Amino acid sequence: MTKKEELPRPEARLPKGLQDTSAPEIRATEAMLGTIKQVFERYGFEPLDTPAIEYTDALGKFLPDQDRPNEGVFSFQDDDEQWLSLRYDLTAPLARYVAENYQTLPKPLRRYQVGPVWRNEKPGPGRFRQFMQFDADTVGAASVAADAELCMLAADTLEALGFERGDYVVRVNNRKILDGVLDAIGIESSFKTRLSVLRAIDKLERLGIDGVGQLLGAGRKDESGDFTRGAGLGEESIERIWRAYRFFGRDWKKPFSVGVYQRYLRKFVPFEYPSESIDQGLEELQDIRRLVRAAGYGPDQICIDPSVVRGLEYYTGPVFEAELTAPIKDKRGQEIRLGSVVSGGRYDGLVERFTGEKVPATGISVGVSRLLFGLQLLGKVKGDAVQGPVVVLVFDKERMADYQKMVQELRNAGIRAELYLGSSGMKVQMKYADRRGAPCVIIQGGDEKEKGEVQIKDLVLGAGLTAIEDREEYLAKQAEAQFPVKEADLVKEVRRVLDRHKS
Amino acid sequence: MTKKEELPRPEARLPKGLQDTSAPEIRATEAMLGTIKQVFERYGFEPLDTPAIEYTDALGKFLPDQDRPNEGVFSFQDDDEQWLSLRYDLTAPLARYVAENYQTLPKPLRRYQVGPVWRNEKPGPGRFRQFMQFDADTVGAASVAADAELCMLAADTLEALGFERGDYVVRVNNRKILDGVLDAIGIESSFKTRLSVLRAIDKLERLGIDGVGQLLGAGRKDESGDFTRGAGLGEESIERIWRAYRFFGRDWKKPFSVGVYQRYLRKFVPFEYPSESIDQGLEELQDIRRLVRAAGYGPDQICIDPSVVRGLEYYTGPVFEAELTAPIKDKRGQEIRLGSVVSGGRYDGLVERFTGEKVPATGISVGVSRLLFGLQLLGKVKGDAVQGPVVVLVFDKERMADYQKMVQELRNAGIRAELYLGSSGMKVQMKYADRRGAPCVIIQGGDEKEKGEVQIKDLVLGAGLTAIEDREEYLAKQAEAQFPVKEADLVKEVRRVLDRHKS
Repeated sequence: MTKKEELPRPEARLPKGLQDTSAPEIRATEAMLGTIKQVFERYGFEPLDTPAIEYTDALGKFLPDQDRPNEGVFSFQDDDEQWLSLRYDLTAPLARYVAENYQTLPKPLRRYQVGPVWRNEKPGPGRFRQFMQFDADTVGAASVAADAELCMLAADTLEALGFERGDYVVRVNNRKILDGVLDAIGIESSFKTRLSVLRAIDKLERLGIDGVGQLLGAGRKDESGDFTRGAGLGEESIERIWRAYRFFGRDWKKPFSVGVYQRYLRKFVPFEYPSESIDQGLEELQDIRRLVRAAGYGPDQICIDPSVVRGLEYYTGPVFEAELTAPIKDKRGQEIRLGSVVSGGRYDGLVERFTGEKVPATGISVGVSRLLFGLQLLGKVKGDAVQGPVVVLVFDKERMADYQKMVQELRNAGIRAELYLGSSGMKVQMKYADRRGAPCVIIQGGDEKEKGEVQIKDLVLGAGLTAIEDREEYLAKQAEAQFPVKEADLVKEVRRVLDRHKS
Repeated sequence: MTKKEELPRPEARLPKGLQDTSAPEIRATEAMLGTIKQVFERYGFEPLDTPAIEYTDALGKFLPDQDRPNEGVFSFQDDDEQWLSLRYDLTAPLARYVAENYQTLPKPLRRYQVGPVWRNEKPGPGRFRQFMQFDADTVGAASVAADAELCMLAADTLEALGFERGDYVVRVNNRKILDGVLDAIGIESSFKTRLSVLRAIDKLERLGIDGVGQLLGAGRKDESGDFTRGAGLGEESIERIWRAYRFFGRDWKKPFSVGVYQRYLRKFVPFEYPSESIDQGLEELQDIRRLVRAAGYGPDQICIDPSVVRGLEYYTGPVFEAELTAPIKDKRGQEIRLGSVVSGGRYDGLVERFTGEKVPATGISVGVSRLLFGLQLLGKVKGDAVQGPVVVLVFDKERMADYQKMVQELRNAGIRAELYLGSSGMKVQMKYADRRGAPCVIIQGGDEKEKGEVQIKDLVLGAGLTAIEDREEYLAKQAEAQFPVKEADLVKEVRRVLDRHKS
């Protein structure tokens, strides 16, 4: 083709917070998603897909940290100047879908969805700007039986992935109680302040009392110098929150019953009963507890926990998160806390945004990448390894058609195989086969061709030869590792080698 | 939660050219992707994932119709004002990946990738702004054996999906020949003009001679009034192209050998031999033909076809496309042409953009949506139907925990099951179960509870009852369709009903 004008060379690099994914990780992820899908299907959820791009106003802005530039969402304008955004979760598109198709949907609607979401946030270790979510939601069910079921779903999913009872726990709380408490201790009730307070409290474990105190007050500058605006509370209000925090916090004894929760509230929060919001919240927790216990889930699997808050603004009732409790060590042997791997809650107002009518809804989201990371560190990953292809080497470039024919014979027999397609000599070809994890290579030079034979070289056995000191044994093994076979027996003999090394 | 300020209600709708995907279509797509994956793996390709977002300059602009506003790509600026874009195909990101990791990759690199791509184009019937691609590429292989292999891969993939020999054909041509011909007939050799000419010719089947003539000249206005700028050729040049077109076009006899191709060129194109570009192009086609025939592929599977052009700018050698040749009728019984379902070609310059060094590469792309559409119309879709869940009805709201326990028992036995989570009465619950495709429902009222029993109602048998006229038979069938079982036998008896209706 004719020469194109010379342009400056672009740099081959990815924007920060984005990453390529290698074959073993893709395979492990797919195996994991397959397992999750199976559990979700067993619960009667049906798949739904929505596109990555939505109208910005339809998605709404429900992310934490929305004071940052660009508000956490990737946005751009369409030809007709309307704003479009990449979805930042799978819940906002679901709300749009339900509002758009409400009349024709089964009610309740039970759907699951898996796919990437995008956040225009400052990337950091383990924080990416594209990541995978796997959600299940029940829309149109006001009953807390729907919330209880999602907690069971979270537990069943984790167990199906190989975590045992005791390796994880699903913790449940209720925004109605948190809201009632903030009312009771007299925290200013503007929506924005209230949300900032909840989000600050949600970060207690990560930032500690000082950090959260700053977020409750004027604001906090992180290590990198970035400033997050605070809730703007005065010292006295912050003090009142700390006093009430005794029960928000983790210094409670397990199992934590609803009765204990109620006594704590009475003792530490200066409010007058009845508080409708708190009462309702406690009652719902009691119902959830009853349902999951009846279905056979113990407090080591699903428990009530006043420290659960969740940072998303749209939650209106029960909130839950599943956490890995098994001790996890990173590659350097340091114990780490992974945080929640499944989370969710009830959001009764999200469809109402569009229609003006309340549609109760509740859902959970599996943090796919974090969960995979946990499985990796605990040595529970499945499906990441696949046997490499048999490589047919090119001894004589003029005879490509013959070699191609052998490859095709192997493939037609269902054997993973490829022809070496580079232009290098035999030594580099052997290295390539090693690199590809080939269990064996096929070689046919002029001599073999004349005899109607091919050489099969078992690379796994071959690699072990150097360790053998006994001459007799060496020769025997060597004969086993490389041997001639009739062309017609190629498939049969290759299969024999593959069977040697099946894992 | 405290009241948020009232905002105007957003409209629940999707931007044009984007769509939601329903459960049956998701299931069919997944089954299809699974089959394609199996074939690609058997060929020794390894999966790779790249993110949806890349630097705009790294992707480059290789789409057809790039004179339109927004140039076919969705773009936006990062915090640091650098331009980012959504990928418009999977080849440009691969080139970036290879250039970025060249030193550490196996060479040749054989990778496959599946995922959505985005085009900021005018949507139309069957033209979407987000669609799925499934690519396989071999990078670092200059040999046309790599191209030949991709043609075989295309054929094997289509056959694995259920198309038979004769239902499809993979057609191969070479850009080197097309380029040589345009040289020979004296078409101005600026890169942009040359590309516009090739793209115009590529549209012959869709637009006809008049439409393509306009695209070769000043330009063309389509039915909607949109104007596409033309190649700007004068009448004489266009005339010369039409004369040469006798062999571009489809009025040749099959099978079309390289010898016939060469004779046609000699006869209709006024050029002096040798033309290096044409000779090389013909030789490569001959090699591809030899390789695929040796591997057992007949001309009804892979054939040479001078009418193949492909619209993408980066192709530099062999180009190929697979087309469904089986007569396909749309839902109204009208015969339709689906166009190419797999396409690809050699692009030796794409990595060079970054590194300055030539890295030969060739690849194919499966048009997932179009292929699924073809499978649907030919009645060859697999995996789209899944048995609905067993629905446990709520006879008495106070007894949710009991019902939940039954559901969990069924699930623990691996049976797809759900509890009715809405708030309606029995009649609506029965309708819901029908809607969900439930094979049966479980009911337990007060009487049954006392006896330690549950009622199983087989909805499939039940639906057939109305057609029965004989009273005896009706009563017998009715007893079969709804019957009480002991609570302890729930799983066993439900399984018996499910087995009745297994497809």
